[in-house]
Amino acid sequence: MKVGFIGLGSMGSAMAGNLVAAGHAVTVWNRSEAAAEPLVSLGAKLAKTPDRAVLGEAVCSMLANDQAVRDVFLDGGLLDAMDPGTVHLNHATISVALARELAEAHAAHGIDYVAAPVFGRPDAAAAAKLNIVAAGRPGALEKVRPLLEAMGAQTWPMGDDPVRASVVKIAGNFMLASAIEAMAEASTLTRAYGVEAADFLQVMTSTLFAAPAYQGYGKLIAEQRYSPAGFAMPLGLKDVGLALVAGEGRRVPLPFAGVLRENFLDALAHGGESLDWSALALVAARRAGLDGGDAA
Amino acid sequence: MKVGFIGLGSMGSAMAGNLVAAGHAVTVWNRSEAAAEPLVSLGAKLAKTPDRAVLGEAVCSMLANDQAVRDVFLDGGLLDAMDPGTVHLNHATISVALARELAEAHAAHGIDYVAAPVFGRPDAAAAAKLNIVAAGRPGALEKVRPLLEAMGAQTWPMGDDPVRASVVKIAGNFMLASAIEAMAEASTLTRAYGVEAADFLQVMTSTLFAAPAYQGYGKLIAEQRYSPAGFAMPLGLKDVGLALVAGEGRRVPLPFAGVLRENFLDALAHGGESLDWSALALVAARRAGLDGGDAA
Amino acid sequence: MKVGFIGLGSMGSAMAGNLVAAGHAVTVWNRSEAAAEPLVSLGAKLAKTPDRAVLGEAVCSMLANDQAVRDVFLDGGLLDAMDPGTVHLNHATISVALARELAEAHAAHGIDYVAAPVFGRPDAAAAAKLNIVAAGRPGALEKVRPLLEAMGAQTWPMGDDPVRASVVKIAGNFMLASAIEAMAEASTLTRAYGVEAADFLQVMTSTLFAAPAYQGYGKLIAEQRYSPAGFAMPLGLKDVGLALVAGEGRRVPLPFAGVLRENFLDALAHGGESLDWSALALVAARRAGLDGGDAA
Amino acid sequence: MKVGFIGLGSMGSAMAGNLVAAGHAVTVWNRSEAAAEPLVSLGAKLAKTPDRAVLGEAVCSMLANDQAVRDVFLDGGLLDAMDPGTVHLNHATISVALARELAEAHAAHGIDYVAAPVFGRPDAAAAAKLNIVAAGRPGALEKVRPLLEAMGAQTWPMGDDPVRASVVKIAGNFMLASAIEAMAEASTLTRAYGVEAADFLQVMTSTLFAAPAYQGYGKLIAEQRYSPAGFAMPLGLKDVGLALVAGEGRRVPLPFAGVLRENFLDALAHGGESLDWSALALVAARRAGLDGGDAA
Repeated sequence: MKVGFIGLGSMGSAMAGNLVAAGHAVTVWNRSEAAAEPLVSLGAKLAKTPDRAVLGEAVCSMLANDQAVRDVFLDGGLLDAMDPGTVHLNHATISVALARELAEAHAAHGIDYVAAPVFGRPDAAAAAKLNIVAAGRPGALEKVRPLLEAMGAQTWPMGDDPVRASVVKIAGNFMLASAIEAMAEASTLTRAYGVEAADFLQVMTSTLFAAPAYQGYGKLIAEQRYSPAGFAMPLGLKDVGLALVAGEGRRVPLPFAGVLRENFLDALAHGGESLDWSALALVAARRAGLDGGDAA
Repeated sequence: MKVGFIGLGSMGSAMAGNLVAAGHAVTVWNRSEAAAEPLVSLGAKLAKTPDRAVLGEAVCSMLANDQAVRDVFLDGGLLDAMDPGTVHLNHATISVALARELAEAHAAHGIDYVAAPVFGRPDAAAAAKLNIVAAGRPGALEKVRPLLEAMGAQTWPMGDDPVRASVVKIAGNFMLASAIEAMAEASTLTRAYGVEAADFLQVMTSTLFAAPAYQGYGKLIAEQRYSPAGFAMPLGLKDVGLALVAGEGRRVPLPFAGVLRENFLDALAHGGESLDWSALALVAARRAGLDGGDAA
Repeated sequence: MKVGFIGLGSMGSAMAGNLVAAGHAVTVWNRSEAAAEPLVSLGAKLAKTPDRAVLGEAVCSMLANDQAVRDVFLDGGLLDAMDPGTVHLNHATISVALARELAEAHAAHGIDYVAAPVFGRPDAAAAAKLNIVAAGRPGALEKVRPLLEAMGAQTWPMGDDPVRASVVKIAGNFMLASAIEAMAEASTLTRAYGVEAADFLQVMTSTLFAAPAYQGYGKLIAEQRYSPAGFAMPLGLKDVGLALVAGEGRRVPLPFAGVLRENFLDALAHGGESLDWSALALVAARRAGLDGGDAA
Repeated sequence: MKVGFIGLGSMGSAMAGNLVAAGHAVTVWNRSEAAAEPLVSLGAKLAKTPDRAVLGEAVCSMLANDQAVRDVFLDGGLLDAMDPGTVHLNHATISVALARELAEAHAAHGIDYVAAPVFGRPDAAAAAKLNIVAAGRPGALEKVRPLLEAMGAQTWPMGDDPVRASVVKIAGNFMLASAIEAMAEASTLTRAYGVEAADFLQVMTSTLFAAPAYQGYGKLIAEQRYSPAGFAMPLGLKDVGLALVAGEGRRVPLPFAGVLRENFLDALAHGGESLDWSALALVAARRAGLDGGDAA
């Protein structure tokens, strides 16, 4: 399939690479061109401007946040450059408000908007093992199924309304942050009584919590290895902010999200800018006066 | 081995049954005698008074809470009835303060105190699939190893100090309650945007959260099936209270535990007395004004 | 002094009226013209468009929120219509981000921007008893002193940077909301033990808390008289949101503000849209299962 | 009137002194005798044992906490030493559970139990300016009215049930702690934007919050003068604990109290043991990374 790919960070590059590998004709664009080079060497075509990347049957995008999506697709006028009937697969984690706005703007241009946020880190993206939550017109989803299959292990359909996929992604990331905070507080408690975080988390993540989320972040907390960040603290704050704003839009109190917000701010106020979000464990330890409660 | 077993609720009965099945000579005692009958029919011996149940090489106990443990072992004078050298395996979830007090009282009587709280519900107890967290003198643990192996899938040693096993159990239950609350809030958020809890939790518990804790409680929340309770709301409040008190003892702030406490109280104030603790999801839904936010 | 006044809600009308009464030549503008009539009958001049209201030595504005201020002064191009040297007194409660943006935009036009948010309700505005927090260039403040004196009981200077006055107003409103919540929780607790809110709050607001904030809102809570709203629930949510966003901008955790946010949402999810923000007491009562915990 | 006084800390000594000054025949007892000397020099009689201090028509007690009250009056058997018809005025801040237990134990001995906790610091006690919240049998209150008038500025009757006075005191202290935390967070926010706590709190405590609670603690926060403690951090934790436990007893969620509890623990974990409870402001500042966020 002739497909464009916009946004070549660590996630986008890996996903676009899998499209190329699956034999699709991929045209890529990224704000800084250097990121496109490895893909070009694999066979992708480079677009000098974004409007050159949206001329196929489908366009995938994986941009950093609301602002970047808005800049490129709404303010940048990219929708005008796309043919009616094109399917836009937006893989970014964005606010429910922007999801709604994008759905309406695409509809006004006769373009199919499919929200398709992903669960998985860059290594999962590279291995085509992402879990993709997708919502949009069934015919559009059917059309891009080969793309989804090339990038992910499984696609989880969430119905017609793209907002539904966005809220699932937001709620899922909130569950991840909550899992980190629960391990942070619980292991600080055991440490205060002489049980190392590693010993405690070993029990929990081998038994009741034997799942990737707990095993992955539990290992980082046990080893106090917060750098380099797989998912940096400011992104954690951004994502819990998306949950809070989504909750506000429908009047859903989210007290755990409120606690997370305070703790991300505490982390950022203590040098946590470039640490992995699992360094919430440093906040818990510092508040309890334990060693290891400060960013190195 | 000649062993006593005190406390025959649904957990204790199943555990004692496995000791009998493994060929140990088990003498049982329970406040209400009726609970002992099935075990007697399997070959256990019935003690009319607790002091008759503590005459073997080891004594296991699985009592409901601090008060019950205190009544039987401290105020009831049972330690006086035990021979020095006996090993007492306490499987109950108790406070760190009582764990400390018990350790000292046993030591004063020359009795080995091993804290051995368990993770697992009655069905896991019946299947001898408990995870047992054990702390006490290494020689004592070695001596009761056949008992632990008869009751559990795995024993997780936590060192000499019994308090360490108790705090691990407390911290683990706090993680369970946090997982429930995170699913409660997150699925309330998705419901407010049209995604059923079942659809959302299906994605999460099949992927990043594919672990027993999330799959078990996620299913209850998805089906709004909170009755009969596997672990009732007042027990949830009690256990998060143990975490808060343990935190207070070492000056460990636990903001998630604080939120849990408020929400357990809210549940209890709205008819949740006999519901499973996963009915925290009703509190989240009620606060957001969603249907299904009230106990039937 | 020749002065314009933009925004004639209940606060703005009262303030502009006092300027007229003090002998200033006031030209008024409001989106809906009807609100201007009483002032015109007192001697104010009516501007058909906002640019006609900004031709004096000073312009006061009292608009509802960030969006209204942005629409009129930034997007509406009003700054272009103002003479360099004009002083703009902005009385609205706005975000720190917009305060910063306004300060810069005014500076670029050579216009003096003075942030002058007020504490006080419409009755205090009518009686010229407002407390005005003012920040801007000292020369500008000096110039508009007669206006400030005509509208307020006292002006509290906060230095050169207009953002400083805005943050004081935001922090002050957060303290008001916290006072309401503290009374809501505390009186729910006493009610649960048989002491009516009125009896409890009578003691507190006659002694340690004998201050306008507590006496005013305490009376509303004691009498459960939340309608008509003096300051409606959605405005409370908006203002605590300004505090949270300001905190986020400087990485200041505000756990009380987080609790307030959840409770405002809970109130709004239960029919509190048109109630006074002191109806946070209904949320506390409802969560505890007490009568009077629902909006009528 | 012939009256005993038990418990001569800074509060009790001042209160007993006013009874002596009012011409009552006061017999005093304190665990450490030295504290009684100044009162003896004023004319009080010294009791060598507590049972010698309870032989009058009334007994006042001002002990530190639940444990001290329990030790002296319940476990110490003092009720047996009192004549039926004696009135016991308990001025201590105690739990609702102990208040209930004391009421029942006194009734069983035919002794009148009047809960009479006080609002006010030692200087107010010395000046006989306490606010006394009193609950008990009306005839008993009438009988001790001369004592209450000698010690306080005003007595606030709360009905027959002594528990009611205790819960009012607990709820009142919770409101004080909430006021401190609100000032702590709000002034941290303004500081982060360049407005000193002193400047901000000056506005607030001169206007909407012009009340003793805010002016007193606001001054301490503005001056960062947390030592010597008027009311030490561990007492703050104890009192918010009384509110939480009272709430738990009637299933009243108290989210502000939960936040306070975490922050008291944070303060204690950072060297705040001997600081005034208004040093909650240090916790807020430290979490935000501001100077002055550490105990000296």
